[in-house]
Amino acid sequence: MSIVVVGSLGLDDVQTPHGSVKSVLGGSASYFSVAAQHFAPVALVAVVGSDFPTDYHELLKARGIGTEGLETVPGNTFHWAGRYGDDPNQAFTLTTELGVFQDFHPRLPESYRKAGFVFLANIDPELQLEVLRQSGGLKILDTMNFWIDGKRAELLRTLQEVDVVILNVQEARSLTGEPNLYKACEVISGFGPKVVVIKMGENGSFLHTPEDKFLLPAYPVERVVDPTGAGDTFAGGFVGWLARCARTDRDAWRQAMVMGTVMASFTIEDFSLRALMRANLKIVRERADRLRNLTQFPPQDESLQ
Amino acid sequence: MSIVVVGSLGLDDVQTPHGSVKSVLGGSASYFSVAAQHFAPVALVAVVGSDFPTDYHELLKARGIGTEGLETVPGNTFHWAGRYGDDPNQAFTLTTELGVFQDFHPRLPESYRKAGFVFLANIDPELQLEVLRQSGGLKILDTMNFWIDGKRAELLRTLQEVDVVILNVQEARSLTGEPNLYKACEVISGFGPKVVVIKMGENGSFLHTPEDKFLLPAYPVERVVDPTGAGDTFAGGFVGWLARCARTDRDAWRQAMVMGTVMASFTIEDFSLRALMRANLKIVRERADRLRNLTQFPPQDESLQ
Repeated sequence: MSIVVVGSLGLDDVQTPHGSVKSVLGGSASYFSVAAQHFAPVALVAVVGSDFPTDYHELLKARGIGTEGLETVPGNTFHWAGRYGDDPNQAFTLTTELGVFQDFHPRLPESYRKAGFVFLANIDPELQLEVLRQSGGLKILDTMNFWIDGKRAELLRTLQEVDVVILNVQEARSLTGEPNLYKACEVISGFGPKVVVIKMGENGSFLHTPEDKFLLPAYPVERVVDPTGAGDTFAGGFVGWLARCARTDRDAWRQAMVMGTVMASFTIEDFSLRALMRANLKIVRERADRLRNLTQFPPQDESLQ
Repeated sequence: MSIVVVGSLGLDDVQTPHGSVKSVLGGSASYFSVAAQHFAPVALVAVVGSDFPTDYHELLKARGIGTEGLETVPGNTFHWAGRYGDDPNQAFTLTTELGVFQDFHPRLPESYRKAGFVFLANIDPELQLEVLRQSGGLKILDTMNFWIDGKRAELLRTLQEVDVVILNVQEARSLTGEPNLYKACEVISGFGPKVVVIKMGENGSFLHTPEDKFLLPAYPVERVVDPTGAGDTFAGGFVGWLARCARTDRDAWRQAMVMGTVMASFTIEDFSLRALMRANLKIVRERADRLRNLTQFPPQDESLQ
């Protein structure tokens, strides 16, 4: 099944203890789409300015990502500059320039409206609602504290029409005011989305569905070079896997968590989308096998009883 | 098989956001022995002062814990007072009074010297070495930053004669100077202990043996009341399980990690050893089953290949 993603394409400047890069491809929709395209066909809805390098445009097309919904308009592309210290979980934003993204109103090409999955990356919840009204399929939403704090009512309205929400642990707490993660998931589920995925960085991730709870450690990475885009990449692996197997049973949700985790492990190993673009299904499968081997244990011996 | 534990019995004052207690039973050896005794016979080597309540002494005996090696001498019992804020991973020590523990020289009764397992709780590494010279069996050591910083040479000497070391993540980093956990385990293994267990609090735990690596999330607890003793309890469940099944193959190590995790989940749910003492094998087994259910996932579908 195919996937539509609505989000940002951006040009990022990033500094980490391992080096720095300037004007590299970034934005939620780029990480998501490159990750998901490893598993299933992806089409983008986004906007870039006239400064967006042709190379980046070609790079997405060359990977088979649908760009019919990618508008180029006069002005500057969304630009983010950030810095990480020794703690890869904490990003310090130096600059955010919305550029042409400021006036973005996502329009889904007619051919996109039958996609099996729609991923609403972290954008204004009012725009997310506009997209939901143009699309069918399974609806997955990401957001951030900026919207939770600034457009809470609009976000709650949008969540009513969403099937799956993917949040990090701080976002889940600020959305619900509930410090306990399990209780927070139940509260969020009450807002609309039946499935709640909580990203916990190096602590792994947690899946909460009406029938299941699943806890998965992060894939161990020896050297975290640049954590930018890890969350969007997780979402790409997660939704990509669901689209590939075209099922939403217990095993499919759990496997999707594994694939989200594995794809994110590539992203953080290099700047921008470099490591994610070097990945292929063979090494993805090897990491999924390794994660399984690292985390599984046998049933209890009878002697305990 | 039976277990000998050498460590502290103490009287603790603890304040947490959920309340406070005074002069409750504490100390590494008490948490360890009560946890391990759920699985296998345990005998204590420790010292208390004349102020140690008869009730606490009786309580240990009533659970079947061997107290032949428990000396009572004139003076005050080891006393710790501490406080936790909202982050249960961070303890603020208000008072440490060594009392009779200051002049403690552990002597193993003859009957203890054939135990299959010896657990050296967090005490001076020179005393730990004295114990190792009096005992056979599988040797497991815990320590803390106080000894890593203050008696590094002595600790390294003692580690040469140890089979298993159990550390928290900060201790592993300060012992090795290696920020990467996997590399730190390899360095520690080079010091002597073939098996390294890293406790990561709410992030779970990690097992490193020459043949295996295993990553396990923490058991989810709704309300952490008092984290005191969680690490010693983990060790008690871990060693207790190994003693119960009398095996040290891959499955036994992994199951031991599960039992350490489950036992620690009880300790943190109430003050002192209260919740740990309410536990029984039936509910231990239920939590182990639940942890398994929470963390296991099926092999990959062929469709990925």
